[in-house]
This record gives sequence, structure tokens and C-alpha cells, in this order.
Amino acid sequence: MDQPPFKKILIANRGEIALRVIRTCKEMGIKTVVVYSQPDEGSLPVLLADESVCVGPAASKDSYLNIPNILSAALITGAEAIHPGYGFMAENPDFAEMCRDHGIVFIGPTPESMRALGSKAGGREIAASSGVPTVPGTGVLETVDEALLAAKQIGYPVLLKASAGGGGRGQKVVRTQEELQSLFNQAQEEARLYFGDEAIIMEKFLEEFRHVEVQVLGDGQGNVIHIGERDCSIQRRNQKLIEEAPSTLPDSLRQEILAAGVRLAKYVNYAGAGTLEFIVDTNGHYYFMEMNTRIQVEHCVSEMISQLDFIKEMILVAAGNPLRIKQEEVKLYGHAIECRVNAEDPSKDFRPSAGKITNLHVAGGPGVRFDSHAYAGYQIPPHYDSLVGKLIVWAPTRQEAISRMKRALEETIVDGVKTTIPLYIKIMDNPYYKRGAVLTNFLKTRME
Amino acid sequence: MDQPPFKKILIANRGEIALRVIRTCKEMGIKTVVVYSQPDEGSLPVLLADESVCVGPAASKDSYLNIPNILSAALITGAEAIHPGYGFMAENPDFAEMCRDHGIVFIGPTPESMRALGSKAGGREIAASSGVPTVPGTGVLETVDEALLAAKQIGYPVLLKASAGGGGRGQKVVRTQEELQSLFNQAQEEARLYFGDEAIIMEKFLEEFRHVEVQVLGDGQGNVIHIGERDCSIQRRNQKLIEEAPSTLPDSLRQEILAAGVRLAKYVNYAGAGTLEFIVDTNGHYYFMEMNTRIQVEHCVSEMISQLDFIKEMILVAAGNPLRIKQEEVKLYGHAIECRVNAEDPSKDFRPSAGKITNLHVAGGPGVRFDSHAYAGYQIPPHYDSLVGKLIVWAPTRQEAISRMKRALEETIVDGVKTTIPLYIKIMDNPYYKRGAVLTNFLKTRME
Repeated sequence: MDQPPFKKILIANRGEIALRVIRTCKEMGIKTVVVYSQPDEGSLPVLLADESVCVGPAASKDSYLNIPNILSAALITGAEAIHPGYGFMAENPDFAEMCRDHGIVFIGPTPESMRALGSKAGGREIAASSGVPTVPGTGVLETVDEALLAAKQIGYPVLLKASAGGGGRGQKVVRTQEELQSLFNQAQEEARLYFGDEAIIMEKFLEEFRHVEVQVLGDGQGNVIHIGERDCSIQRRNQKLIEEAPSTLPDSLRQEILAAGVRLAKYVNYAGAGTLEFIVDTNGHYYFMEMNTRIQVEHCVSEMISQLDFIKEMILVAAGNPLRIKQEEVKLYGHAIECRVNAEDPSKDFRPSAGKITNLHVAGGPGVRFDSHAYAGYQIPPHYDSLVGKLIVWAPTRQEAISRMKRALEETIVDGVKTTIPLYIKIMDNPYYKRGAVLTNFLKTRME
Repeated sequence: MDQPPFKKILIANRGEIALRVIRTCKEMGIKTVVVYSQPDEGSLPVLLADESVCVGPAASKDSYLNIPNILSAALITGAEAIHPGYGFMAENPDFAEMCRDHGIVFIGPTPESMRALGSKAGGREIAASSGVPTVPGTGVLETVDEALLAAKQIGYPVLLKASAGGGGRGQKVVRTQEELQSLFNQAQEEARLYFGDEAIIMEKFLEEFRHVEVQVLGDGQGNVIHIGERDCSIQRRNQKLIEEAPSTLPDSLRQEILAAGVRLAKYVNYAGAGTLEFIVDTNGHYYFMEMNTRIQVEHCVSEMISQLDFIKEMILVAAGNPLRIKQEEVKLYGHAIECRVNAEDPSKDFRPSAGKITNLHVAGGPGVRFDSHAYAGYQIPPHYDSLVGKLIVWAPTRQEAISRMKRALEETIVDGVKTTIPLYIKIMDNPYYKRGAVLTNFLKTRME
């Protein structure tokens, strides 16, 4: 028996990803501590972890983002490492640094590479340095004339963005010279209003594109490999609903994007699991958007086609081991699709449908995986996201994976709350989806 | 889209295997009809099939073995083919022949090869002709002197068997010359008493051995491939409980057995999925026991290491297609284990524990498959076998598969009835099991 790389790991997360980490730890012979908020007391991760520590009330800022309480929980229980999952603390370099300061291993990249990649400007700079294209754009534009010149170079439509902004607020799509002339000052005005800073930048606006991302694993010792790419174009309000691996991109383009992703991650000597998100436009041009320096919700589809366990590799690397897989040993085979089962009503603009799951029946049979913290009788707390499970299928071909997903969705029963399952059944029958010709506006333009 | 090979298939079975076939049919775009007995009316296969036909009351002979009713159901619903699953009609050559006579495709081998392999003598003869060893034995022995001579050649201990017998009745283990002298006439006497025929044969008696079986697929057009072997040594009362693939046999022996299995199946120009069962003694000698001319309960472990869907291949071959996989294309990777979740009380000699499943929570996460017709609220009918589900895991290595199985067993909840799960959790921790040194007497000798 191999010696486990850690004796005990604390999981600073909840829901399905907390359970995901617990599962791998159990299989590796590592004890687990899970932290939880008051409403999560009866949750499956709390029931299945070896130890659990309540770190505060429902509000995330008081519990799952409560750094002193989480660090205390780790120190008190003697956890040697912390797995942050996704969301919450997963991309907080200050937290990673505090872990290090307290002698606790943060299972993820260094605070330094998180910081370098975390800011918009930083990401763009690193991409440029490693020869990876980003969406054409400008620095801060002072005047309408500067903006008109820039737009001419970039080509309409363009996007005006508050440099200090975020979350899409104050963004303006501009399609003509005339519009730019009339909207530029207004954009400055709104930027000052919303963010206290009138600085405006411009980016090429892409109406419809594919969201393609590259999964990488690195060890911080110079080794970075990719585990293929995923297509995550089916989204609602910029949130992914369905992901698949591999994408349906032509192979030459796929190889270019994979190489770009590895180049970029190598540039920062990346450690752990990470994802490089790209936009691919309808002309086959690709642009780096951002890097997620953590495990992602949709990592499972890449696990299915590679037969790897990314959480295990993250833990091994965090313990100081070099990557034990070489690029040429990564064998990708078949096709995997994930549907995020959200407690939402797709017929009412995805309104959250909190409540109690009165009955849960999970699809089985060949090629089906279900990652979920839900159970019959589980009360979905209204404080967190609406993800109640991930239904993932694998099959030798994309066509077979779609057929398998459809039958698995039809077998799955989640009673008591509305879910996105009925929508996904329709998508599996959609001719555009079947052809693999899906862009981020799919739900709006192809599912009416 | 490929055209499905049949429009509609009738499934002449129940429980998890009926559901297994429905799943593949759905994925292939084939409509399904399932037959059911009265107590199975509310079962999951009946709920999930496109059509269902009641073929009789609870007793198998009146429903699942009721040939006229099943054939009528197929003809009335317009099913082009019948999948028999395992058990019931799966190895009945008369049924297969009647299907053929009615213009219905029987998804399995021809009645002729079923008959050839069905009798003990026939199987031995085919094995001999194809150069595959069987357990050393004799023809009918008339006198004690003949028996003494035979035992001397075979070597003690030997087994005296009624030639007309079956199911172990009237069998005697004989360890010495003296015992043979005193028991031979008694054995003849009992054989006459039980079976109306005093003819006695002798076989080498093996106290402890491994049960190893070879999975084959054939097309009746001369092509037979193997999909590796399985070890099914963990049994109670000659019924398998845990199976795994591959076995832990040394590779040279494994290759010999695989080649023997393919040779034998090729000899009868086998069509469909089949399993050749072998005994492997502690000296590494192997002997052919019998061929199961059908899909087996434990086929899933071989599916997991080959990433194939055997039900799909059976259907394609039955439709007249040649095998679409060549031996060199079969890639076996990793290790899979199956635990049969039976509604039985292992602490009370596996007494059946019929009743209602009040709660069912299925393990999830990477590498876990659950094939089951059970659901929360399901009333297990007392008329059939006690299998309520098959928990199957896959991992890159045997050690990882054992760890994964343990955590999956610990996650699984079946309330309302006793199950074999607690026993399996102990087995996953058993040092003999972990070493892969398991013989058919494991439960008696290694689990006290």
C-alpha cells in the first residue's frame, strides 16, 4: 500500500464538490474534515466526512468565506492541507498565502501565480508574453476621437467597458460610428456613477462564439500537461449548463488551442488543476479570456475521457510530488457530456426553486456518473447556488453520448423541486446541438 | 444517424437485466416491449419500457417460462427479436428454436450450439475436440475394482457422481481407497434411489480452486473474440457474490485460458455473448467446466475494463452483422469489481430478506456504476432471486478499485431489508482478498 501523501485534509467548501473531494480522500486513505455553515449541518458531506466543524451561520461571508474560522478549524483538527473546491476561497490568493503562513498546504496554485492571473490586465499581459491571442482591445480611452480611431482598427461591433467595472454593469455594445459618437460620453458618465472612475476601455464585441476551455495539470516544477479541451457553450446568463469533452472543433484548431493553453500555464509554472478559458469565434479565431486557477464544476467530463482522477492528481502535486503523468501518456478516448441539474425552473427564466427533494432516483447503467450531495429528504438551502447534481455520461462517440444522456435524463427523478432536466431532454433532441454547432446564444436563438 | 438494426425488441426477463437491455435499446433507438408477471407490474422495467405485456401470475413457470404467452406477446406487439437476459429462457434451445420457427430473432446463439454445449457429456466432448482440458474423470464405472483403478489414475480425493444426477445430489467425496471400497456400492444404491439409474462416474475432486471465466463475443460467421477473463471465486452455495476483471492469475496462465476459451467457442462457431467457466487449481492447472451461452450477471466488470457495451454487440450480431471489433482492437485497461447487492442476511446464512425498500441512496462519483431495478418504495417480490442491484467500480489498479468499492459500499444505503453490503465492506478490508489470493472456499475459511 502506498503511504497517503497527507494524513488529513480539510475541505473548505460545501455541496457536491465537498463530497467529490471526500470521495477521493477516502480512496486515498486520507482522513477528511469538512467545514459547514449552520444550514448545511445535515448535508451529505458533513455526514460522510470523518470530522466536521461548523464555521458560522448561513451567509457565505460568515462561514464559507470566514477565513479565521476556517483556518482555526484546520489548526484545531490537525489538517495538513486544505482543498478549497471551486468558488468561495478557491481563487483567493490572500487565503492561499495565509494557509502557507500557518504551515498548511493550500491544494492549488501559489498565491503568486493566482495574483498574476487574477487581474484582467495581468492575464492579458501573460497571454501576450506567452504568445496567446486575446480579444482585440485597448487601454484606457480618453476622448471620442481616440475611441473612433480604435473602433476603426478593431472593427465594429465593439464593447465599451468601465475599466474599473465588473459583472457586465455599464457595458455598452456599439455597432456604428454614429452610435459610438453618441454613447462614449454617456459610458464615461455611467462608469463614474457606478464605479467612481470614468476610465473606459474598448474590446471587440463577439455576438456569438463558442466557449472552449483547456484543462491543465501542473506541478510547479516545470511540468504542465493538458487533458484535452471542453466545450461549454450552452449557458444561461453566462453560467454554464451543459459541457462536453472533447469539443467539436476541427482538429488543427483544437491542437492550436491546447498548445496555447499549455504554453500559458507553463509561463506561470502552474501547479495543480487549472482551466484556460477561450472564446472561439465563427471564423475559427480563438482568444484567451481568463484562467480559472482551481478545479471546475465540469472537470468530470475530462475525467471521463481520460480515466483520470483530477482531485487525486491535485493532492499528489500539492504534497510536493512531480506530475506522474506525461503528456504522451494521456489517452483521450470517447465523448463525455455533463448536464448540471439545477433546482431552477427553466420555463420561468431559471428562477431558483428551493425546497425539499422528496424523492430522488438516479440513473444507472453503463457510462453514467452522478455527482451529487442531494438525497431524498434533502432540504435545499436558499443561501447558495442551485446546483443539486451533475449527471455525466460517457460513450465511444458523441452521437452515442447524446443518446445515453437522453435516456439517463429520462430515468432520473427529482421530486419536490423544479429542475433543469426537462430542458436538457429537449436539448438532446435539438438538431443544432446534435450537429455540434452550438454557440453561446444557443438557448436564445435555437431553443425557441 | 445509424439505422437501428431492429425496430422493436421484446425482453423476456425481469429485474436489473431487463432494465439493462432496455437501456441499451433506448440508446440504439430501438423500441422495447417487456413481459412481466403479476407481482412485477409496478417494476422499473415495466415503467421504462415502451410497451409491456403481462404473461402470467407470480410463479415463473406460469409467466417468465410461459413460452406460448411470451411468443404471443412478441407476435402481438410486432417485436422482431427477443432478448432473453439470463436465467429463465436464456439457455433453452427449444425456446430459441420456437422463436426461429415464428420468424422472431432470438438474441443469442443458435439452438444447435446451445444443445451441443448444454449437456455435460457434450461440453466435455467439444472441449476434448478443441484441445481444452476438463477435470480428469471417467465414463460410467460398473464395479468397485474399476473405480479403484480409476481413482489410482486420477489421484485422491475423487468425487463419485450419479451420471444421471444434478445439483450435487448423491455426490460423494472419497479420500482414500478404503473409503472408496465402502462407499461405491452405497453411491450406486443412492443413484438408483434418487435418479432411477445406478450409473456412477468419477471426477477428480478439487477442494479449493479459483473460478475463472472467459468472456467471448462471436458472430456465428467464424469470428470469436475474448474480452478478457473474470475471477468469480467469492461465492456462497456455488452462487457468485463478488466478481472482478481481470483476474490476478499470472499472465502466461491467463493467456492460455483466454486462448482455450476462444478455441472452444470458435469450435461451435459461437454467436452472441458467452462465458466459458474454468476451474483453476492451486497448482495452476485449469479445467473447463461449462459454457454459459448467454449474457451473465457479472458482464459489467468486463464492460468496464473494455469500455464496450456487450448488449449492443449482441443485438448487432443477432441482426446478422459480423463482429465489428477485432481481437487486437480490444483494449483492456484498469480493474473492475462488482458486488451483488442481495436482499439477504449474511449473518443468517444468507437468508432472503424480502420486503419493501424504504430508502435507497446510490453511491456516485468517479468510476462507480449501479445497475439496479430497485427504487425507494420498491416491494421485493418473494418469488424470484434476491438480487436488488449490482454495484460496480472501475479504477486504474486493483488496489484503487478495492478502495473505491469500499467507499462506494459505505455510501450506499438500502433501508427496509437486510443486504449483503456489510459483508462486502468487511471483504474489502480482508488481507487475503486484498492480496488477490481468493479461492472458492474464501467465505468459509478466510472470513470467520
